[in-house]
Amino acid sequence: MAIITIIGCGMMGSAISWPAIHNGHTIRYVGTPLDRAIIDHARETGEHLTLKRPFPKGDLHFYQFEEVTEAMAGADLLLCGVSSFGLDWFLDTVIPMIPDGAKVLSITKGMIALEDGSMISYPEVMEERAAALGKKNIDFNAVGGPCTSYELADLDPTEVTFCGRNPETLRWLKSLFNQEYYHVSLSTDVRGVECAVALKNAYALGISLAIGMSYKREGREFEHYNSQAALFGQSVREMTLLLDLCGGKPQQLPLGAGDLYVTVYGGRTRKIGTLLGTGMRFEEAMEVLKGVTLESIVISTRTAQAVRRLIDRGVVRAESFPLLLHIDELVNGGKTVNVPWAAFTREDF
Amino acid sequence: MAIITIIGCGMMGSAISWPAIHNGHTIRYVGTPLDRAIIDHARETGEHLTLKRPFPKGDLHFYQFEEVTEAMAGADLLLCGVSSFGLDWFLDTVIPMIPDGAKVLSITKGMIALEDGSMISYPEVMEERAAALGKKNIDFNAVGGPCTSYELADLDPTEVTFCGRNPETLRWLKSLFNQEYYHVSLSTDVRGVECAVALKNAYALGISLAIGMSYKREGREFEHYNSQAALFGQSVREMTLLLDLCGGKPQQLPLGAGDLYVTVYGGRTRKIGTLLGTGMRFEEAMEVLKGVTLESIVISTRTAQAVRRLIDRGVVRAESFPLLLHIDELVNGGKTVNVPWAAFTREDF
Repeated sequence: MAIITIIGCGMMGSAISWPAIHNGHTIRYVGTPLDRAIIDHARETGEHLTLKRPFPKGDLHFYQFEEVTEAMAGADLLLCGVSSFGLDWFLDTVIPMIPDGAKVLSITKGMIALEDGSMISYPEVMEERAAALGKKNIDFNAVGGPCTSYELADLDPTEVTFCGRNPETLRWLKSLFNQEYYHVSLSTDVRGVECAVALKNAYALGISLAIGMSYKREGREFEHYNSQAALFGQSVREMTLLLDLCGGKPQQLPLGAGDLYVTVYGGRTRKIGTLLGTGMRFEEAMEVLKGVTLESIVISTRTAQAVRRLIDRGVVRAESFPLLLHIDELVNGGKTVNVPWAAFTREDF
Repeated sequence: MAIITIIGCGMMGSAISWPAIHNGHTIRYVGTPLDRAIIDHARETGEHLTLKRPFPKGDLHFYQFEEVTEAMAGADLLLCGVSSFGLDWFLDTVIPMIPDGAKVLSITKGMIALEDGSMISYPEVMEERAAALGKKNIDFNAVGGPCTSYELADLDPTEVTFCGRNPETLRWLKSLFNQEYYHVSLSTDVRGVECAVALKNAYALGISLAIGMSYKREGREFEHYNSQAALFGQSVREMTLLLDLCGGKPQQLPLGAGDLYVTVYGGRTRKIGTLLGTGMRFEEAMEVLKGVTLESIVISTRTAQAVRRLIDRGVVRAESFPLLLHIDELVNGGKTVNVPWAAFTREDF
């Protein structure tokens, strides 16, 4: 049985331990400085504070971040459980502590846009940071695919993809986590998997606009789906182009499409999109959602920045990304919703 | 202004007239022998019986099928408004009446599987039938894309694709129907468009299985989305392969994905999938849905037949279509639900 040390015990960082616990592995949960209450609550009650569910029975140990050295000692796998917002903290604080040669699995999904508009994935960013510290043999892997934390904790059948450079490591990771309710595919196309699943955050916001537009038109919480489907189709179209721009393989698209589907039902991204869809300005909508952190905002902003640079460089045309650019206008340009439906139509002769 | 004669006045055959009415065109609605009550009701009340909505104000005329000759005289466009179940009737009864050189737009979505497992689209089937009658110049076109009839009638923003062989005809058709709530793309990839949108009927049933499984597990009408998303991703994966097998272009995939999204929320297909997902046998589920006609059953059966023939011929591998083959086992093989989750996982090295 393996020892898995998880750093970052929010909802997803914790929920992914469920299948590993059911496979009999030892889990050491290390809270970040922001997870203090989660660790305290877990120690007192055996329950996860924000997942609002008891941890499964197993060999579980809880640590505050001051105890991280003890928690990492002898671990077979280090799991990075922070969200996009914790990435810099993880790079600055945790990467220096990881011994060279260690195996890491990260749930953090996202892309970084470089100056020239090219995009690289978080595992690549981690790898670069580690290499800069002289640690060239940390084996970084990541989890992609449609999975919301509370549904995983409810044992709803879930399919994910683990990506990394080393097939042997990936197969070992699968052996730790694969369960009758958690089905793991493997891919060495890190860029493609991470790009496909990161983009869905941006586009789920775009699809949710139709929900708010429908509420507004009907004067009540009533959803129409033709408009959501039109935005879904356009999202898949733009994601296909972006996947190619990122250097990912087209076979990752179904992963992104499935992840997009679940994210529209996933909570926070849907909420901001719905509010913007009713005609609110971004600042008003964020006021309503006070205090909520939204990866969709970070990702849509970063992706739009990258695409604008590529447009400036003549690599892509603005006409290919009408939805992404509209989302960016809403989030960063002070505009109110005005979906460019006609710009989605094509002549394919 | 054009005269549009619609043959087949069910929900979709009628709803598609909304944008044409708003563009000022004359509509002649001709009921099939099954639409008698719809035509009577429209004449008496100005309302569509099954759409349960009033027709928009316009130059509208209603005909029973005995009056079809009068209704077709001088029409600029003939619209085929029957469902898949009316296809044979349309081929046998209506095609012989269509003058050579006429323009036709069909809302009937589907594919026919030939003996060798290859699949051709309905417009191609119509074309062949017309050619066999010596009419080689009827210009057959079809509508694809995510559009449910009642949402179109509620003016929810909708995106569709008209496909056909002739770009000029397609642009003219767009000029008749395009509206601020009905956005029309055009494509000469008839096989691709029709394949993408037909397949979603089969796969929407597959995704709905997760809804029923969730109800069963929770003991109440509670949906989980991780499992739906896993089935959504697998559907997109199999649809990508089928699109290619049909000779369609990959750029039609977003159309199929959008259509799949809306169909999961579309009523009848969702109902049968949900019932099968709770563990019912097909016969029991159909008993519950007594009298309902289901295109998803026809399409999944036909597609599975075609795929089985291609497997026998060694053209494709059964392992590439685990979801379609499971749907077929449920519908035609007397099996109860047992989603082959592990068969969906892949090693992509």
